[in-house]
Amino acid sequence: MNDPVFLRACRGEAVEHVPVWFMRQAGRSLPEYRALRGTGSILEAIADPALACEITLQPVRRYGVDAAILFSDIVVPYHAIGFGVDVVAGRGPVIARPFRGAQDLERLRDLTAEDITHVTRTVELVVEELATTPLIGFAGAPFTVASYLVEGAPTRDFAVIKTLMHTDPDLFDQLLTRLVAITVSFLRAQVAHGARALQLFDSWAGSLTRDEYQRFALPATQRVMDGVADLGVPTILFGVGTGELLPLMSGAGSSVLGIDWHVDLDEGRRRAGKPVQGNLDPARCLGGVDLGVAATREVLARAGRDGGYIFNLGHGVLPTTDPAVLEAVVRTVHDEGMAGVQ
Amino acid sequence: MNDPVFLRACRGEAVEHVPVWFMRQAGRSLPEYRALRGTGSILEAIADPALACEITLQPVRRYGVDAAILFSDIVVPYHAIGFGVDVVAGRGPVIARPFRGAQDLERLRDLTAEDITHVTRTVELVVEELATTPLIGFAGAPFTVASYLVEGAPTRDFAVIKTLMHTDPDLFDQLLTRLVAITVSFLRAQVAHGARALQLFDSWAGSLTRDEYQRFALPATQRVMDGVADLGVPTILFGVGTGELLPLMSGAGSSVLGIDWHVDLDEGRRRAGKPVQGNLDPARCLGGVDLGVAATREVLARAGRDGGYIFNLGHGVLPTTDPAVLEAVVRTVHDEGMAGVQ
Repeated sequence: MNDPVFLRACRGEAVEHVPVWFMRQAGRSLPEYRALRGTGSILEAIADPALACEITLQPVRRYGVDAAILFSDIVVPYHAIGFGVDVVAGRGPVIARPFRGAQDLERLRDLTAEDITHVTRTVELVVEELATTPLIGFAGAPFTVASYLVEGAPTRDFAVIKTLMHTDPDLFDQLLTRLVAITVSFLRAQVAHGARALQLFDSWAGSLTRDEYQRFALPATQRVMDGVADLGVPTILFGVGTGELLPLMSGAGSSVLGIDWHVDLDEGRRRAGKPVQGNLDPARCLGGVDLGVAATREVLARAGRDGGYIFNLGHGVLPTTDPAVLEAVVRTVHDEGMAGVQ
Repeated sequence: MNDPVFLRACRGEAVEHVPVWFMRQAGRSLPEYRALRGTGSILEAIADPALACEITLQPVRRYGVDAAILFSDIVVPYHAIGFGVDVVAGRGPVIARPFRGAQDLERLRDLTAEDITHVTRTVELVVEELATTPLIGFAGAPFTVASYLVEGAPTRDFAVIKTLMHTDPDLFDQLLTRLVAITVSFLRAQVAHGARALQLFDSWAGSLTRDEYQRFALPATQRVMDGVADLGVPTILFGVGTGELLPLMSGAGSSVLGIDWHVDLDEGRRRAGKPVQGNLDPARCLGGVDLGVAATREVLARAGRDGGYIFNLGHGVLPTTDPAVLEAVVRTVHDEGMAGVQ
């Protein structure tokens, strides 16, 4: 039997239609999600496997997307080892005691299986429920996680992390070495329990110059990719605002590069030189079904007919998105994404 | 007598050293600024010509930069015509009644000389004080101003403005036509009273796809440039995250394109095909003098020796910047920027 279309597209193999899923498809834009979740921290919901499983499945049922993505967060492993992370609604991850010096390295011990039983149990529950739809596991890339741990809160300037990496590159490298180990363990555990693809979110790589990316982010990302290569599952590397970085990111070893909407899809694909995922601006899904469909067709027109393409947004689903628009986007991608292809 | 080096560099003419100034050089990072300003709204300070003149001159005296830029804000003309704008410290421009429909067009009448006597008086005072250093006047580009007026507050998603332009492009065009008229009047007034160059801030153009920029932002920017072309002063067009847009922006008609740090300076220059300004990451100025100087040298190394280059940051000075670092950056640019050139 053939692998699911999403997995084949990740490998650049022949597909009968363009696969589609949405970053943040599980979450705030779904009324069934808001009905299920209370007002507690997202980390509490993630800690409840039955609840996290249900939230993971909601968008698969509603949209008929070609992949599920685990309901989780990139700070989950760091919360699990007691680094002191919370996710504040409307703000993002906040660190009680941010990473400040060598003395904080010991707070970043490697993961054990026991630390993340809630996550691996959720993976198992989801995989039991899903028939053929593959589950994507994920983690934050070391640079992006480091930026949270060092800054202590979401930032626009990345002032503290950039100052650290330029003033104390040895300490920065030690920090990233710890994060590589944790990230590899976290990703391997998800695959061991049933995830069939992995996405690595280097969300903030786009804050860096090319030189900085090459020196301070790429090597750690490569080590993560090396650390999961033997598992044989497709890997996706994604960041925002990475147009200039795509040729470098392409060398990190992922199967697929995710791209946002700032770079045209055909040009992004040329820079990536491998399968790509993206790149509809999530804001284009806010103006009703007709506009969402028109925007979807613009992206599909640039996607070509050669496969090696996964439809997605260029960033996460915005909270105010009407699910009816995403339903129409999925239909359009499935019906028209490979029009004319046998 | 030769024009000042900044003006010649803007025109791509021969220069004896690389000129340098800093976006937001007048402002929060200077202790003499904090001593002078109270805690009131920045719009109150801008409304006081003697105070705004002094704030404009402070960085010229301290840093010996090659250009002054008026202490002002892109919302000033909209505040002046009573659109109901305030600038909230730590947040940015906030609009009491955001632009919502055709009925709001009449709230955007053209500027009269009386509306902006505080600005033109400041320009006159500054020009009297400056010996040969040219003063840069500025305004917000129509798309960026529209995003503030429509969103009502700073945004990361630009959801409201993007929905407006795709769902009601006629209304969007009418809005931008109003903003073109106001922007041209505002820029012409600054030149009439002594400004010798103009910068147009299309700060948020980088939120758009290439197609959107071409359709929804570029034409209005071109009309602004056309509206000041007869004045014969150099013009600079700048936005953040515009790497993909530079070839399009190059067609807007400015003398110079400003670029941020995401694109390498030599590559940005190739895309611009005209003089460029930039592109040191402001975060590189937060790690002390030695790191600031090293980062400056990296930028200068990519600048080449052919002139047509103005050193600047890739975005505004960050509030926590130590002025000693910017002093060292200016020295380095002046001493080393054209090393080996006659």
